[in-house]
Amino acid sequence: MRVGLVQTDPRFGERRRNVDDALALMEPQRADLWVLPEFFATGYQFLDSAEAARLAEPIPEGPTTHDLAAFCRSNDCCIVAGLPEAAPDGTYNSALLVGPDGFIATYRKIHLFALEKTLFRPGDRPFSVCVARGARVGIMICFDHLFPESARSLALLGAELLAHPANLVLPEIGQQTMAVRALENGVYAATANRVGTESRAGKVLRYTGQSQIVGPRGEVLARLSADRVEVGIAEIDLARARDKSITSHNDKLADRRPDLYTPPGAA
Amino acid sequence: MRVGLVQTDPRFGERRRNVDDALALMEPQRADLWVLPEFFATGYQFLDSAEAARLAEPIPEGPTTHDLAAFCRSNDCCIVAGLPEAAPDGTYNSALLVGPDGFIATYRKIHLFALEKTLFRPGDRPFSVCVARGARVGIMICFDHLFPESARSLALLGAELLAHPANLVLPEIGQQTMAVRALENGVYAATANRVGTESRAGKVLRYTGQSQIVGPRGEVLARLSADRVEVGIAEIDLARARDKSITSHNDKLADRRPDLYTPPGAA
Repeated sequence: MRVGLVQTDPRFGERRRNVDDALALMEPQRADLWVLPEFFATGYQFLDSAEAARLAEPIPEGPTTHDLAAFCRSNDCCIVAGLPEAAPDGTYNSALLVGPDGFIATYRKIHLFALEKTLFRPGDRPFSVCVARGARVGIMICFDHLFPESARSLALLGAELLAHPANLVLPEIGQQTMAVRALENGVYAATANRVGTESRAGKVLRYTGQSQIVGPRGEVLARLSADRVEVGIAEIDLARARDKSITSHNDKLADRRPDLYTPPGAA
Repeated sequence: MRVGLVQTDPRFGERRRNVDDALALMEPQRADLWVLPEFFATGYQFLDSAEAARLAEPIPEGPTTHDLAAFCRSNDCCIVAGLPEAAPDGTYNSALLVGPDGFIATYRKIHLFALEKTLFRPGDRPFSVCVARGARVGIMICFDHLFPESARSLALLGAELLAHPANLVLPEIGQQTMAVRALENGVYAATANRVGTESRAGKVLRYTGQSQIVGPRGEVLARLSADRVEVGIAEIDLARARDKSITSHNDKLADRRPDLYTPPGAA
């Protein structure tokens, strides 16, 4: 299976241009599953919840789901990409999975970062896994990486590949944690980060790029630049993500001892 | 608070010599809490469970607890160190915490690695935290590092410092995961690894050293060589391990969403 990363530099609010730029990067390449950044079509720094709501789209009815599904149909592939989602009860920081037959699933970001808490509703559904091109795919978004429960929840549900749209701004942190998430769970992890600088109302964010695909031993299979718009592709072997052994006596999931762990609701 | 790492190269089965070597390294230095490797007094590669039982000691009645407590009394400090523990129901891969007033606590390794499963009983008590020199200390041993539940369990119980005796053999893996454990939980983590090569019955293990102390942002405060017997010391600020904020809106523990995680007993 070929997994592709799309590392873009969206211009804030220019949906049509941002979508076209991303699709133009993917068009000449072949991948079974593409991962695009968080908020790839809108940019990241919404000034307030009204602006976030204005740029949000219903999923799957909105234009970006439609555009991505059309690409998947033409190019026989799947895409995971981040979008602000307009839902009846508010706006979510979401990622969708689409394929040649259209919409497959939405994930609503569970761990909101910083001012996102003032702009979006927190994800309201448990982590879940869906199937794309025969792979069990678990979606998590950006800051979810800091919480080991995110990747662990997906691995316990059988995820073989973590699709991780991101807008990382802290140097190396997401890249480092995702390598450990892949290692500790014995899964592949594809983080699509954006590059460039975004300035809104005097606040400047610089995104760290270095989108990466990591294998089940934590080994880096593809890593992009810190500052260039580009794609990266790696061939992955799903059988490796189903084998949880680390020695002939050890299994990364079966060796867990939940009865001896502090209950997750403590603290 | 000063935390010290003792990176030793024990000779298999030579308890007296190994204990004396470790104490001689510590004697000229000052630390509030010293962390020594897993099985620092015995060496690692027990040939069978009978040999492990023969070299195991009751804790706190055994000679090594006594020797370490005497050092703590003379030097006004605490020590965490790994030992095979002789218990009424079998042998455990344990670590003890002693201080100037003697024995404080034992931890029995919960996640046994490779052939340890044939030599030791798995830890039978939940992760717990104890107090040493005013610090809330959580003990975990070597391979526990791969399971994020280990450090998370300790952090949820209020651990400020993870004391991590180890005999790491896989390049970089424990060092990398422990940096992420410190970061994701906002705690300090002190990994004391051994160095050298141990050959028993034709099987050779090479230990990777690089003992380290990492801070709550995942930053390396001390890192020792890959191959030398030595100590390392870092000053740590417990207040930093009590502050779980990562932005003004985010808290590494309070932001968890246990209701949306896959139950730990699943899979």
